[in-house]
Amino acid sequence: MYPSKSTPSSSSSSSSNAEKKLFSKLKVNLTKKYPQKNAEILSGQYGANLLLIGVSVMLALAQHGPAVKNEHLLAFITALMLVQLVWMLCYMIRRERERGPVPERDAHASTSWIRGGLTMLALLSLIMDAFRIGSFVGYLSCVSAVLGVYPIVHALHTISQVHFLWFHIRDVIKKYETFERFGVIHAVFTNLLLWCNGVMSESEHFFNTHRRRLTELGYDNLSTVETEPGCNCTISVCSIFSTSLYYLYPFNIEYHIFVSAMLLVMWKNIGRTLELHSSSERPSTRSPGLMLGPMLGLLALASSVTVLVVYLIHIEKSQQTREAAISMFYLYGVVMMSCMCVASGAGLLVYRLEAWPMDTGSNPSRTLDSELLLGSSLGSWLMSWCSVVAVLAAGPGYPSFRWTCLVYSLLLVLEKCVQNLFIVESLYRRPRDPDEEPEPEIFSITPGLEVPPYDSIVNHGYETQDKPCATLEEETPENRAPSSRKNSHVTLPVRNQLNVTHGRKRQILKNITIFLFMCNISLWILPAFGCRPQYDSGLEQDTFGHSVWTTVLNLAIPMNLFYRTHSVASLFEVFRKV
Amino acid sequence: MYPSKSTPSSSSSSSSNAEKKLFSKLKVNLTKKYPQKNAEILSGQYGANLLLIGVSVMLALAQHGPAVKNEHLLAFITALMLVQLVWMLCYMIRRERERGPVPERDAHASTSWIRGGLTMLALLSLIMDAFRIGSFVGYLSCVSAVLGVYPIVHALHTISQVHFLWFHIRDVIKKYETFERFGVIHAVFTNLLLWCNGVMSESEHFFNTHRRRLTELGYDNLSTVETEPGCNCTISVCSIFSTSLYYLYPFNIEYHIFVSAMLLVMWKNIGRTLELHSSSERPSTRSPGLMLGPMLGLLALASSVTVLVVYLIHIEKSQQTREAAISMFYLYGVVMMSCMCVASGAGLLVYRLEAWPMDTGSNPSRTLDSELLLGSSLGSWLMSWCSVVAVLAAGPGYPSFRWTCLVYSLLLVLEKCVQNLFIVESLYRRPRDPDEEPEPEIFSITPGLEVPPYDSIVNHGYETQDKPCATLEEETPENRAPSSRKNSHVTLPVRNQLNVTHGRKRQILKNITIFLFMCNISLWILPAFGCRPQYDSGLEQDTFGHSVWTTVLNLAIPMNLFYRTHSVASLFEVFRKV
Repeated sequence: MYPSKSTPSSSSSSSSNAEKKLFSKLKVNLTKKYPQKNAEILSGQYGANLLLIGVSVMLALAQHGPAVKNEHLLAFITALMLVQLVWMLCYMIRRERERGPVPERDAHASTSWIRGGLTMLALLSLIMDAFRIGSFVGYLSCVSAVLGVYPIVHALHTISQVHFLWFHIRDVIKKYETFERFGVIHAVFTNLLLWCNGVMSESEHFFNTHRRRLTELGYDNLSTVETEPGCNCTISVCSIFSTSLYYLYPFNIEYHIFVSAMLLVMWKNIGRTLELHSSSERPSTRSPGLMLGPMLGLLALASSVTVLVVYLIHIEKSQQTREAAISMFYLYGVVMMSCMCVASGAGLLVYRLEAWPMDTGSNPSRTLDSELLLGSSLGSWLMSWCSVVAVLAAGPGYPSFRWTCLVYSLLLVLEKCVQNLFIVESLYRRPRDPDEEPEPEIFSITPGLEVPPYDSIVNHGYETQDKPCATLEEETPENRAPSSRKNSHVTLPVRNQLNVTHGRKRQILKNITIFLFMCNISLWILPAFGCRPQYDSGLEQDTFGHSVWTTVLNLAIPMNLFYRTHSVASLFEVFRKV
Repeated sequence: MYPSKSTPSSSSSSSSNAEKKLFSKLKVNLTKKYPQKNAEILSGQYGANLLLIGVSVMLALAQHGPAVKNEHLLAFITALMLVQLVWMLCYMIRRERERGPVPERDAHASTSWIRGGLTMLALLSLIMDAFRIGSFVGYLSCVSAVLGVYPIVHALHTISQVHFLWFHIRDVIKKYETFERFGVIHAVFTNLLLWCNGVMSESEHFFNTHRRRLTELGYDNLSTVETEPGCNCTISVCSIFSTSLYYLYPFNIEYHIFVSAMLLVMWKNIGRTLELHSSSERPSTRSPGLMLGPMLGLLALASSVTVLVVYLIHIEKSQQTREAAISMFYLYGVVMMSCMCVASGAGLLVYRLEAWPMDTGSNPSRTLDSELLLGSSLGSWLMSWCSVVAVLAAGPGYPSFRWTCLVYSLLLVLEKCVQNLFIVESLYRRPRDPDEEPEPEIFSITPGLEVPPYDSIVNHGYETQDKPCATLEEETPENRAPSSRKNSHVTLPVRNQLNVTHGRKRQILKNITIFLFMCNISLWILPAFGCRPQYDSGLEQDTFGHSVWTTVLNLAIPMNLFYRTHSVASLFEVFRKV
């Protein structure tokens, strides 16, 4: 395992040759095998600085000064997208040429349904690009050419990126590592920057609407700084374009952040040595008794849409209806959060009923999933605690909804904690084979016995992943693993009796998961389409001041939106796995 | 490896008993062995929320509203410190009682010199507490009792925490895991909150001084909001107390963040199974030729102190001297950064000269070190890029120093990139045994040969750590590992010739490290004691606006200070290792 010792013949060379050797060695070491750790850090630093350049331009833009204009930012992003396009092209051509052995693939990197979902989001992004191009044509005489080039390049970028996601995202790169590492990290941060740009445009638009609304109600007399082009539109549908644009933004934003998370997994996989694991397909057992969860979930979804519509109508009107709308939102939130807490808590209890071992195998995709879930919770936790401080600091002159707001905020913190626990435990539990018995019931017979440390057992043979439909990747030979256990029926009466209990547990878990899934969709829809009482209530603004509170919201709301979509994706995975 | 299958006798129980069993099992699973992953996430979420509560109170405080006062924050922090005190006491008592087997220890968790350094910082913190208590006695008649309780509890907390660091920080906890996990994470986040509080007080004080200075110069006419107690001090040294306090703050701030990083390593070690590794002591070879590095380093240190004094004197005076002072700072910065870039780059080149394998063993302490280094760079990178954008956006009417500022900012980004690479590579390189030969010189003889993938070789036998002096922990039996290789002299002429080259490389690396070490100390001193041209130049403020730029600085400057102290600590470790 250790580099072979030098033979006497190689070290007997004269000292005048030594310097020459030194330089040739240096050249080889710099151009050939560069240490992996170094390449990782170098590429990470490159990516982080790309993002920071973009962010600093955005910060300057937010000031609406004369020097930095939106065109500069768009030109920078366009350049980054073009570089990514060139890299993806190079990558695909090279892969095409190599042909020979099928590259290793990380089966955990993405499931086909997540790629399907991303394709949907990409389609909506393409529509957005079309609207942007239409707008540009309308205002052709007075806007910068960058505004036309940007959507065209973005459309090209979206199309080739989706293609890349379908065919290459699972690749484990082992050749030209350093070069590919830079390419992948460039793609990650380009998408992150596109996400930041989307978030900024969206929140600026929301903020302008909010200010206009306040001005109409007489609360505020500051003029908005909406940047309108300096000429009239030559085509009739311009206003439709610009209005629809803002309904499409939420999807575009989620598209970019999801892609960058997937690409990050690809980056982490570079140079990795995969462990062999049997990829047995899950038996597609129909699950009977899947009623309560979907029903309650649909109810939650319907009530959310109702709340959204009622809220948006009432918030525009008088002070009294405003307060009523906000009260309604918080009451609705309290009910939702309580239900979700109970559901996740019940799920955790079911898990506690059986000491099933955790799967501790290496899986960058799952690690990233749980880290992102926890990381993106931070934003809305900060927002909640700020609300709690604001309510406690508020004097008696404040509107009646403040106590509901307090309860809502505390429940929100609790709900995210419990839901995170439930999702992470579900992701880390070892999938159960259908013909396998549950764990022995030793606990009830000899309660004094020490439970064996299941979680430290690594058993990669059981590390399976859901593969719902036959994707292109599954045609590779390594994926055609023997699935002999499939359909093997167990007929022993004893086993049947035990399986009933397990079946009931599974049924409960499936119902809980589908309910949480729909609740999270509801909670994404509300803020994504403009129901943000944190702006409208004015409670926190009095305690924290306008600028601090707006900063907190500008950070927390995008994080919260990402949290919801990410937990929707994770819950779907949990649903397939349970 | 798999849980034993259930025996027929246990599953033949009647179905009426099943429910009873379910509940008893649930009870056992909830109270006994709780899954590790869950406990990790639960405790992490608890800690994060503690911090966020504190941060939200701080944000409210920053607004100087009537409802939230400093006393509230201090009371909250005091409560947290008391909880930590109780936990540490429980932990130490329990350890005392167990006595029997010596607990496993993670030799990488901290070196004795880092604990020594922390003890120094803790002493300065204690002096600070004494000053605070003195101040409180002086203003006794008109300030809240919390202001007196806080420094007393903080002093107690500091003393027992230092004791804890010396005797228990390396423990690998394997008993009562869930409980201890909460205790450790509570300690981590209590220290983080104390850090945040220190940073906030310090930056508020700096900002007030800055505003006062601007008002005196006639730039600004806003009154400062310094919170002075409502009565006169009854003892004569009050003003000395409050002035000295702000010179001690930088040390207190670094103390808390270092402690929380060390505790985080302890938290990560809970329940971990250590790999056995031989802890051979490093031979304490005197290194001759250690001249150029320390000399240049001392020169850098001396010039930094000069720059600091000149800057602080000139910045208070007229517009012209202000500009001259800022110009001087940037010129000094350009020279420093260039030297540091060259030094780190040379170090990396020396590493490229020998394809020495990386050490890929599991080591949470080292992983955290490199992550913190990269993470804390982000703040100052953002600051630099903002400066670059500001310079590019500034019109011709701006002062002459803007181009120097541009060069300085770009060099700062580059310097951190190269230095990070150098430090991380040094930390991850496998230490070299003194009697071991360098790698065979196969490259110069057969350049076409594929270099073996060294970095994927794991050889834990060589995973050594510097143990400079005999600490208390080293008296445990497991640390008294055989150090037979020590002092074994190599006398073969061939080996001697090869060792000369290696010795020269080592000498170069040691010089580079000591130079970088002193440069980083210099670059810590400057902002820590008030040399912050980013506030004084006004260049960035014009582009980003006052509030955005202040927010960026409030984030970036503490991160940068931490980066410098952290790289000082890492470079010291590198120096001992090379």
